[in-house]
Amino acid sequence: MEETFVPFRGIKNDLQGRFMCYKQDWIGGFNAGFRILAPTTYIFFASAIPVISFGEQLERDTDGVLTAVQTLASTALCGLIHSVLGGQPLLILGVAEPTVIMYTFMFNFAKSRPDLGSSLFLAWSAWVCLWTAAFLFLLAILGACSIINRFTRIAGELFGLLIAMLFMQEAIRGLINEFNVPERANPASAEFQPSWRFGNGMFALVLSFGLLLTALRSRKARSWRYGSGWLRSFIADYGVPLMVLLWTAVSYIPAGSVPKGIPRRLSSPNPWSPGAYENWTVIKDMLDVPIMYIIGAFIPATMIAVLYYFDHSVASQLAQQKEFNLRKPPSFHYDLLLLGFMVILCGLIGIPPSNGVIPQSPMHTKSLATLKHQILRNQLVATARSCITKKSSMGQLYESIKEAYQQMQTPLVHQESSRGLKELKESTIRLTSSMESMNAAIDESVFDVEKEINDILPIEVKEQRVSNLLQSLMIGGCIAAMPFLKTIPTSVLCGYFAFMAIENLPGNQFWERILLIFTAPSKRYKVLEESHTTYIETVPFTRIAAFTIFQTVYLIVCFGITWIPIAGVLFPLMIMLLVPVRQYILPKFFKTAHLQDLDAAEYEEVPATPFDATEGDLGKTASFPDDGEILDGLITRSRGEIRCVCSPKTRSSTPPTGELANFQRSSSLPDRVYSPRIRELRGYHVGIL
Amino acid sequence: MEETFVPFRGIKNDLQGRFMCYKQDWIGGFNAGFRILAPTTYIFFASAIPVISFGEQLERDTDGVLTAVQTLASTALCGLIHSVLGGQPLLILGVAEPTVIMYTFMFNFAKSRPDLGSSLFLAWSAWVCLWTAAFLFLLAILGACSIINRFTRIAGELFGLLIAMLFMQEAIRGLINEFNVPERANPASAEFQPSWRFGNGMFALVLSFGLLLTALRSRKARSWRYGSGWLRSFIADYGVPLMVLLWTAVSYIPAGSVPKGIPRRLSSPNPWSPGAYENWTVIKDMLDVPIMYIIGAFIPATMIAVLYYFDHSVASQLAQQKEFNLRKPPSFHYDLLLLGFMVILCGLIGIPPSNGVIPQSPMHTKSLATLKHQILRNQLVATARSCITKKSSMGQLYESIKEAYQQMQTPLVHQESSRGLKELKESTIRLTSSMESMNAAIDESVFDVEKEINDILPIEVKEQRVSNLLQSLMIGGCIAAMPFLKTIPTSVLCGYFAFMAIENLPGNQFWERILLIFTAPSKRYKVLEESHTTYIETVPFTRIAAFTIFQTVYLIVCFGITWIPIAGVLFPLMIMLLVPVRQYILPKFFKTAHLQDLDAAEYEEVPATPFDATEGDLGKTASFPDDGEILDGLITRSRGEIRCVCSPKTRSSTPPTGELANFQRSSSLPDRVYSPRIRELRGYHVGIL
Repeated sequence: MEETFVPFRGIKNDLQGRFMCYKQDWIGGFNAGFRILAPTTYIFFASAIPVISFGEQLERDTDGVLTAVQTLASTALCGLIHSVLGGQPLLILGVAEPTVIMYTFMFNFAKSRPDLGSSLFLAWSAWVCLWTAAFLFLLAILGACSIINRFTRIAGELFGLLIAMLFMQEAIRGLINEFNVPERANPASAEFQPSWRFGNGMFALVLSFGLLLTALRSRKARSWRYGSGWLRSFIADYGVPLMVLLWTAVSYIPAGSVPKGIPRRLSSPNPWSPGAYENWTVIKDMLDVPIMYIIGAFIPATMIAVLYYFDHSVASQLAQQKEFNLRKPPSFHYDLLLLGFMVILCGLIGIPPSNGVIPQSPMHTKSLATLKHQILRNQLVATARSCITKKSSMGQLYESIKEAYQQMQTPLVHQESSRGLKELKESTIRLTSSMESMNAAIDESVFDVEKEINDILPIEVKEQRVSNLLQSLMIGGCIAAMPFLKTIPTSVLCGYFAFMAIENLPGNQFWERILLIFTAPSKRYKVLEESHTTYIETVPFTRIAAFTIFQTVYLIVCFGITWIPIAGVLFPLMIMLLVPVRQYILPKFFKTAHLQDLDAAEYEEVPATPFDATEGDLGKTASFPDDGEILDGLITRSRGEIRCVCSPKTRSSTPPTGELANFQRSSSLPDRVYSPRIRELRGYHVGIL
Repeated sequence: MEETFVPFRGIKNDLQGRFMCYKQDWIGGFNAGFRILAPTTYIFFASAIPVISFGEQLERDTDGVLTAVQTLASTALCGLIHSVLGGQPLLILGVAEPTVIMYTFMFNFAKSRPDLGSSLFLAWSAWVCLWTAAFLFLLAILGACSIINRFTRIAGELFGLLIAMLFMQEAIRGLINEFNVPERANPASAEFQPSWRFGNGMFALVLSFGLLLTALRSRKARSWRYGSGWLRSFIADYGVPLMVLLWTAVSYIPAGSVPKGIPRRLSSPNPWSPGAYENWTVIKDMLDVPIMYIIGAFIPATMIAVLYYFDHSVASQLAQQKEFNLRKPPSFHYDLLLLGFMVILCGLIGIPPSNGVIPQSPMHTKSLATLKHQILRNQLVATARSCITKKSSMGQLYESIKEAYQQMQTPLVHQESSRGLKELKESTIRLTSSMESMNAAIDESVFDVEKEINDILPIEVKEQRVSNLLQSLMIGGCIAAMPFLKTIPTSVLCGYFAFMAIENLPGNQFWERILLIFTAPSKRYKVLEESHTTYIETVPFTRIAAFTIFQTVYLIVCFGITWIPIAGVLFPLMIMLLVPVRQYILPKFFKTAHLQDLDAAEYEEVPATPFDATEGDLGKTASFPDDGEILDGLITRSRGEIRCVCSPKTRSSTPPTGELANFQRSSSLPDRVYSPRIRELRGYHVGIL
């Protein structure tokens, strides 16, 4: 993405790019068939549960003016609009924690002013929304999103880890609250007596850890050993919602012998309760707000605008990292413009606005990558198998796979996708050179089709609008399903928060570097085995450690800032500060080459290859996958440099430093766990002997 | 072991065999240095915790006549005698669940008789012990233990699984009890109010699952990625007791806000409480027992004798399975004789007798195998490394390793141990054939020393008496440390019971076959990867399933019998019945070859190679091991046919049926995970191409 600050140019480019693939966005989604439900449900739960929980928090903090009904309505409405009119359909919108904090601050301010009061709070916040939207329009039109590329991996991953910490903090705080009397509750009622509170707290521990452990396990179901492939796939796709159901059911087991309030459950008014919709008519109160407050509203509005600009863009950026090999163009400027309109809409109907959320947006992309991979993989394996039964040679096999692969691609992206195939050719040549000749027949006991194809298949994402649309509709449905949602214990939600925090750690290179520091030297080769990270080969360990410690200290400072009562919402400024730090300060302490491997270019989004609408029919032909667990591992466990197929030119070809040589000496990795590059290096070693 | 029924011959053979290695038993133990503390502590906890728990059960059931003080005293005393005078020092003695059940039955009987009453209960049970001892003498002298060999793997493993089920049942029952008012407690006190009982039960769930999960994790610490090798070794060795400490500490966290009885803790009188030693003088009451009861005592005595005969012998047998490659001879007959004397002693001082226990006895051997392996391995790796730095050829390397290995063996066992080396030679030849020549220098990037040596090292056990003696003394120390033991929550004990049940499942081939039935066909090769079990290659899957289902039904019947109030103690008869079933009925349904692979010979103990006392000095030279996790995996995860190095003649050399071929086609195992036999087969495949 070029840095253009010519007014409207960014928006125009975005619109042009996305318009070309708009039709395919819908067709592709519908063609995937019922399997689109797996990522949809997954992301629906990841999106709905925090929104409900934030709604509860907001209800407590605004004396019930805003509730989960409003946060759900905002998320559903904005999601719906964004999935239909938005630029990047991978982006998931929702009411986020910073919004809740800002609204709480605004409510407290309004309540403290006699000429405003809590009755005019929503009207005043509508004015704040108008101001915010104005700032967002300005930013979008002037092309402010162009500089988002200057937020390199260091900023994005630090932000990701910060969000994970905030989620975890929310989980722990929630669990501690289970032992205390909640605010606004009657401390005289039976369930708040010390004995029952103790029981309630302990039960909460059981429920939340139960959910956390089973949910984490169920996500790995594809690599389970037991049960049929269909069952394992089902559990991996829908395990998390199933576990929420399961532990909610468990929470009813002691129902007979305990007071009604144990365990504590979600509290939220039903949408049909009287007064639940007072906020819809807020527009008629807007002119009652004193003029001074209307003007003063621009102060919180700047903060919210800065926050949304950053949050929305980074969520979008994380959802379209280079590793995902996206085909369709990004749309930062236009999406920010659209966000402005949605903020106005939300303000006028008195609900808190939504913006792009982390970690749900990258989770969405990941789940779609799994889907696309399953479709592609089944097709290629079938092709290769048929070659082998025909006793073809390696050369023939390669040709047929290449053909099948290209058939499944759009005509325009041939050049790029064939890079993956080059790698197949290299690996087959290496394999055959150790055998008789390129023309010998292939035996599956030597050439493992599924493994080889998993090795060469680049990660690809099923980019479409259907999953986003459906999850928005489902969140809308939640408002009607409120009586059912209210059966979920709050402790299960705590467990879910912890799950979301942990689920998003693997693949965060920053996190993996923290782990690397604690890894015993004799075990470091295992990191290489799993994530094929380049930096580990090219950067000396002490430099990795120094870089990681700097980043960790910075993270802790950011986390500390969120604890400061009001200024806390400005923590995005700290992350913005990382841009000059990365550009001007870090190069003084680290070599450029090292910095590039640790951070840098990896984090740019894909250069937008023009897209044409001929993808598509795969969804129907491929059968339900038996096991995609290898990919499951790749995608979920490592967002890192698993596949650099799309841009080998950026990879430096310097020989490895001492680190790699040491790993090789101390380890005994079988050949196939190496990335092609390492395999090559290894061949080099053997050749020397 | 020959089946000899000539009176005294078995005892004589045992004494002769063990006398020869008696001195080395002590020297070898002391030479291992402080590292002997790891298996000692491990087995001390595995032994003490159930004994304490059974003592608590006994106290409840005998109105406080017998308590944990008595069960601990019996375990310490018998353990001490056995470790010094006993035949097989790998056997661990303790008061077991069947003894508790029998004593409970006897107490209820005595209490119901007005001319006996609970005051004469101990005196009467002394008579029962005398009768029991008489039966045991008879069995030992007549050589009844000879037929223990007819209990094949099917019986031993079924018994092992039954014990695991009983432990698990104890854990679950204990947890349920945490929600109820205990018997003999005052239901009016605060901690037994419904609200506190609920809290107590939930806290118990947290504590027990906490202990279970962390203990299971800590046992695998050697393969952790984080922390130094020393720390990981320490956690793996002492993790379980550390976790008991940790969760006991956790149980004190809510101490300020809950009544004193929450969570419930071990209740037992201190040994210095008045009346705790009344039982010591039971001998003077013995003649007060009416003559009719003295004669009638032979009825419970037969049951106990049958039980002890079986329990003691099977525990001893499980502790010296063939896979452990023991060097020193067994001692079934003499140990049974000695048990008789110990039963008399216990009876006369009014404490319940101890006998050989499962699963502690095989756990003891396993922990000693790890120790021995670490010592051997360090020595061989050092040798190989020095060869490589000297740029020796493969041939030279093999010679030096062979030399070092033999230096560490006793002169008499050369023939046998060199079998492991043959394998090394084969694998080096295979390796070099793919390289230039046998004389090329070795590079560690190709030849991974540690891995290769782990592959060829047979499992060996540090057979000595010190660990058994020390653990007995420590259990004796427990009696004095009773005030500390009483801080352990009962729920932590429940967790520990569950841990013991689960810890002993891997390696039980019966259990692994049950899992195999539920394993998805496409994943079955993974079983092969891990445990190298022969049956999976040679027996068709349907036959494996049929055999396993038969065994499972039999297990469930046995488990059902233990639920029958009094006859329940006769469940060993069901297991004895397996001998004729295995010999006469099963061969009608299964092919002999299949039966042999599924059961049979695998289960005989080692043919006793005469032992001479020159082992020994290794302990001092070898350094503290960095990581023995590969072995850890082998031993803990698979008691099966991991290493058949000691008797390759028993392995059938039939070609694999379809199963193996299928595995190979569907899997892509790197070469080194195959057992030598499979590697060979695989080579055969490749050769054909």
